[in-house]
Amino acid sequence: MMNNLLVAQSGGPTAAINATVVGVLEMAKLSDRIDKVYGAKYGIKGVFEENFIDLEALQHNTKQLDILKQTPAAVLGSCRFKLGKSGDGNLEGQCAKIVEILRKHEINYFVYIGGNDSMDTVSKLSTYCEKHGIEDIKVIGAPKTIDNDLVGTDHCPGFGSAAKYIATTVMELERDVAVYDIPAVTVVEIMGRNAGWLTASTALARANGGKGPSLIYLCEREFDVDRFIEDVKDKIEKENGILVAVSEGIKNAEGTYISELYKPNIVDEFGHGYLAGVGQVLTDIIRERIGCKVRAVELNLMQRCAAHIASATDLEESRMLGMKAVNAALEGKTGVMVAIKRLPSKDYAINFCYADVNEVANAEKTVPLDWITEDGHDVTDELYDYLYPLIEGERRIRFKNGIPNEISIL
Amino acid sequence: MMNNLLVAQSGGPTAAINATVVGVLEMAKLSDRIDKVYGAKYGIKGVFEENFIDLEALQHNTKQLDILKQTPAAVLGSCRFKLGKSGDGNLEGQCAKIVEILRKHEINYFVYIGGNDSMDTVSKLSTYCEKHGIEDIKVIGAPKTIDNDLVGTDHCPGFGSAAKYIATTVMELERDVAVYDIPAVTVVEIMGRNAGWLTASTALARANGGKGPSLIYLCEREFDVDRFIEDVKDKIEKENGILVAVSEGIKNAEGTYISELYKPNIVDEFGHGYLAGVGQVLTDIIRERIGCKVRAVELNLMQRCAAHIASATDLEESRMLGMKAVNAALEGKTGVMVAIKRLPSKDYAINFCYADVNEVANAEKTVPLDWITEDGHDVTDELYDYLYPLIEGERRIRFKNGIPNEISIL
Repeated sequence: MMNNLLVAQSGGPTAAINATVVGVLEMAKLSDRIDKVYGAKYGIKGVFEENFIDLEALQHNTKQLDILKQTPAAVLGSCRFKLGKSGDGNLEGQCAKIVEILRKHEINYFVYIGGNDSMDTVSKLSTYCEKHGIEDIKVIGAPKTIDNDLVGTDHCPGFGSAAKYIATTVMELERDVAVYDIPAVTVVEIMGRNAGWLTASTALARANGGKGPSLIYLCEREFDVDRFIEDVKDKIEKENGILVAVSEGIKNAEGTYISELYKPNIVDEFGHGYLAGVGQVLTDIIRERIGCKVRAVELNLMQRCAAHIASATDLEESRMLGMKAVNAALEGKTGVMVAIKRLPSKDYAINFCYADVNEVANAEKTVPLDWITEDGHDVTDELYDYLYPLIEGERRIRFKNGIPNEISIL
Repeated sequence: MMNNLLVAQSGGPTAAINATVVGVLEMAKLSDRIDKVYGAKYGIKGVFEENFIDLEALQHNTKQLDILKQTPAAVLGSCRFKLGKSGDGNLEGQCAKIVEILRKHEINYFVYIGGNDSMDTVSKLSTYCEKHGIEDIKVIGAPKTIDNDLVGTDHCPGFGSAAKYIATTVMELERDVAVYDIPAVTVVEIMGRNAGWLTASTALARANGGKGPSLIYLCEREFDVDRFIEDVKDKIEKENGILVAVSEGIKNAEGTYISELYKPNIVDEFGHGYLAGVGQVLTDIIRERIGCKVRAVELNLMQRCAAHIASATDLEESRMLGMKAVNAALEGKTGVMVAIKRLPSKDYAINFCYADVNEVANAEKTVPLDWITEDGHDVTDELYDYLYPLIEGERRIRFKNGIPNEISIL
């Protein structure tokens, strides 16, 4: 009878999710109680399909592990699949099937790396095991999301790297838009439908005294278009080439997305409603009401996959969480998410802890309103201080032939 | 009587244009024949306005010079201004005014860094000087453009860094779009109205065996929408998550931009024609005709300012061209652009040479059609081999507080 471990990845890619796989592989290698490590392809879907890869060769190849740590996206593939909703909808049947497959492959430990939906899977599967007295299968969640919106953890793996990319890029953009001495507004649209953490991280572009964004709007706070135009007018009177950062999810007082509000009549030649981003919508409004030069920049997918400028802090914590997840399973834990606790100290310091997966699955951690300045268009020092340590440190990326060396999807 | 030198920057920002300023400052420091170095703010506009900065402190600060070398955009500011067209339009009067101002500040050497328009200025000013027997003022152009479209030089400073950013980002995006096992098309829109060099550089994402873009369309070749849809269908049958790279300037057989062709009826609530990019237009068409998941990604301004992943080859050549420009002036040259000549050798090797500014001012170097594959949607090995050495090498960027250390506009 073997003691095998299964790892899978789920949800949107990040620059740090593979570092967690690295941590899982390393800890499994360090323990004599684990035989084989399998990877399920395309998340929990791969479990149903028994689409498993033996990760032994990778596990013992130090150089490949190091390259994997700097590879973005999800090396095992990913999925968007919720138990009891997707598939045949029969939760009991789905869980029974998973248990049957895990037993067939002598898998006692299952580490699932992902966000809310993945923790929902961890919760349902572990609850099923508990209900049916299944004690030989331990299910552990490991957090991952660039959105930083999971509860039960101080911050989320993947976020720090996204924030570092955003802070760096916004600083570079600020240099770029400042070169002409004419009034111009560049609106930078940042990911985040409900949580403004990524948009807040644009403030880190000021870390070395640079101007950074002149205005920052998070989706947590109601967005008023008239007030926005006044804010822009104010700034553009004093400075040329200003940069405005907005969350894609900003909404008006009625809770309607600004991106939807201002494009009701636009259809393309096929009669489709046009899917413009909020940056495009806001630049249209500025052009109309102020008349200056405008441009919208969407940081798009690059926010979650720009591993070439990953945060060393983020990568290392992500790796450690993978190790912690394996240790938790070995110590008999199940139905928990490994998490990060920030310690009260002058210098940034953390420890690892556990979060209740039920709570994680059903909640979203947004930016506290009192971390947004009263005028509504900037972040407070508290928020800046929370964010800053998460982007600290640079990994010396291995390049090959002019581009970073990475591992393709397995 | 002093022998002063003036340097100015013009046109769109790049990641390497400040490296040329560094080279100018260094060469001026190395020569006993130059007293002061001034920078004109906002290009030739700053000359008319006598908006000069004394660069002496910077010139002697080794650390600041090193930081400047990794700072994107244009540290002196830039402009879009053509002699004889912009301003009062009186070319003779404009040139006389410039000469008067240069003499007032005892400036004998003027290095102007920029693209076609800047070389037009170099051409007109040097022609004026020659015509009027003015021998004490030497005007030298130094090339700069991410578009790589200047004639008379093997390639242009700024291009290699943009290409490196694009190749790296496209590789990261390719990882990202491959994580789900469902058909999806991501269209990446790359800068370039008439020259497809930047779009071609997406092929470098394959340098380490990665898939890279499944389809690449340069603006040099006529774009047929029906054929494009067939190409996409072909690819999407065989692979999930494909990536398509297109030049913003692709045109149909009639020479109309695809971005304009397919949005004739779209107006926003203000009655404005909607300015969608070609990526957005193509994803709309794919959604309509194929029906799979689509996304448009525009690399936007990041292409020209992502100095954090600059090409070491590009930065070093840019710096050397700044040095060469000063040397050229000291050796009595005027009305020339310093340029790069690629040497015939197995390993990449270059020398510096001079280009005729008149020619540079009035021409654009596009990708030769026989460097595009016959099927029209990829690049040939010749093009790949031309591009590859230009992204080689990484500068070890100085970071501070989690982001690259940079110098704000002076």
